[in-house]
Amino acid sequence: MIKAVVIGSGNVAAHLIKALGSSPQVQLVQAVARRPEQLEGVLPPEKITHNFNEITEADVYLISVTDGAIAQVSAQLPFTGRLVVHTSGSTDMEALDAKNRRGVFYPLQTFSKAKDVDFKAIPLCLEAENEADFDTLRTLAEALSNSVYSISQAQRQALHVAAVFVSNFANHMYAQGAKVCEEHGIPFAILQPLIQETAAKVATLHPLQAQTGPAIRHDEKTIQRHLDFIINKHQKAIYTLLTQSIQDEQKL
Amino acid sequence: MIKAVVIGSGNVAAHLIKALGSSPQVQLVQAVARRPEQLEGVLPPEKITHNFNEITEADVYLISVTDGAIAQVSAQLPFTGRLVVHTSGSTDMEALDAKNRRGVFYPLQTFSKAKDVDFKAIPLCLEAENEADFDTLRTLAEALSNSVYSISQAQRQALHVAAVFVSNFANHMYAQGAKVCEEHGIPFAILQPLIQETAAKVATLHPLQAQTGPAIRHDEKTIQRHLDFIINKHQKAIYTLLTQSIQDEQKL
Repeated sequence: MIKAVVIGSGNVAAHLIKALGSSPQVQLVQAVARRPEQLEGVLPPEKITHNFNEITEADVYLISVTDGAIAQVSAQLPFTGRLVVHTSGSTDMEALDAKNRRGVFYPLQTFSKAKDVDFKAIPLCLEAENEADFDTLRTLAEALSNSVYSISQAQRQALHVAAVFVSNFANHMYAQGAKVCEEHGIPFAILQPLIQETAAKVATLHPLQAQTGPAIRHDEKTIQRHLDFIINKHQKAIYTLLTQSIQDEQKL
Repeated sequence: MIKAVVIGSGNVAAHLIKALGSSPQVQLVQAVARRPEQLEGVLPPEKITHNFNEITEADVYLISVTDGAIAQVSAQLPFTGRLVVHTSGSTDMEALDAKNRRGVFYPLQTFSKAKDVDFKAIPLCLEAENEADFDTLRTLAEALSNSVYSISQAQRQALHVAAVFVSNFANHMYAQGAKVCEEHGIPFAILQPLIQETAAKVATLHPLQAQTGPAIRHDEKTIQRHLDFIINKHQKAIYTLLTQSIQDEQKL
């Protein structure tokens, strides 16, 4: 039974608290939050504190706060020599204060307050300063997820960049599609099956094999028609750049 | 019982033939293909012809060929006054030869030879020159799909542009993620849950509400770290442009 404390009350923290709280192999002993009201309904009030001096004993402390606050929060912990990890994809393990043993516990997923996720399917990317601590993190991770990876600092940085492309930027493409639909009185729902199928395709096909559309076909007539159709300045620039990028990638 | 003939043997034609062939409300009387061998296994050989003079009587003829060939193929049909439609998202109905009654039967989906799709979920976008023909197309469409729309020419053009963004360009974002992973010895599979969840999110949230990541957070430190990390010229340009576009959209 691993005893865990979560520090933070944002999106990732809330989902992590729910997952840890419902795992039979983990004892979630406490959550530490500056604004405890954000965790209302997630955890019983007696398990939440905003006072760092009330933090209880645990095997692992998971700091799940904004990237910029990790160093400060880890420095404020009123103990030394314990295992403290952060959950950030884009922050070095060394950002954590060296007075404790350090590690990373990075869930590679996009979290919304409003939407539950299946934690079992979320890849957990682990790093630790020593092997014993890595084993503790692995045991904890395997209690939550079927998908546990040892990921170095450089790999995690790469993964975070990759995640921006496949998630944040893919979502921005959905936003462009929604905007075009709204401008022409078409329900965005009509694009749903296409969005879901495009995502489903790359579960079995490499994205380079799954690529379709006017760019990869070098259908210059359709490309020109689309560019004439698009008025929005950013949309035009995005269409032009991505068409060029798809065509150049094909040559490699 | 609507009698249908499909002309073409590409991806869309093959999927359409399968769907029509398995619908109890449709009689797929024939497929016309320049290269009949492409339809091997999809339809019995006696139902396939490459000879335009052998085309049989039907209620509707569906031309599913490359956009550039639609005009020519429709002109070659050895009959007049019948209902002839194309399946293209980016071609005007008027591209069809005026000697027949014209319409459009556009399935809004991405098709791969290798992957079966659930036709019931595919939005079918219909247009016709007159109401009686529209009703025929609607009956045919409803025999295949639960999602049938009346879509004008201008709307179909908008939809095609929207589809490029949410499908072709989203897939290109997946390709960037795959490339970054491959360059750092990380299996692309680790990104799958994130890709699927990002797509699943916009089934319930508007993409503008679903947007996460360093751009929307104005996390300039992470953005700069990512730009320093990215070497590839196109990737850098895409990262910069989409970050700018996400931030500007927020201001509107």
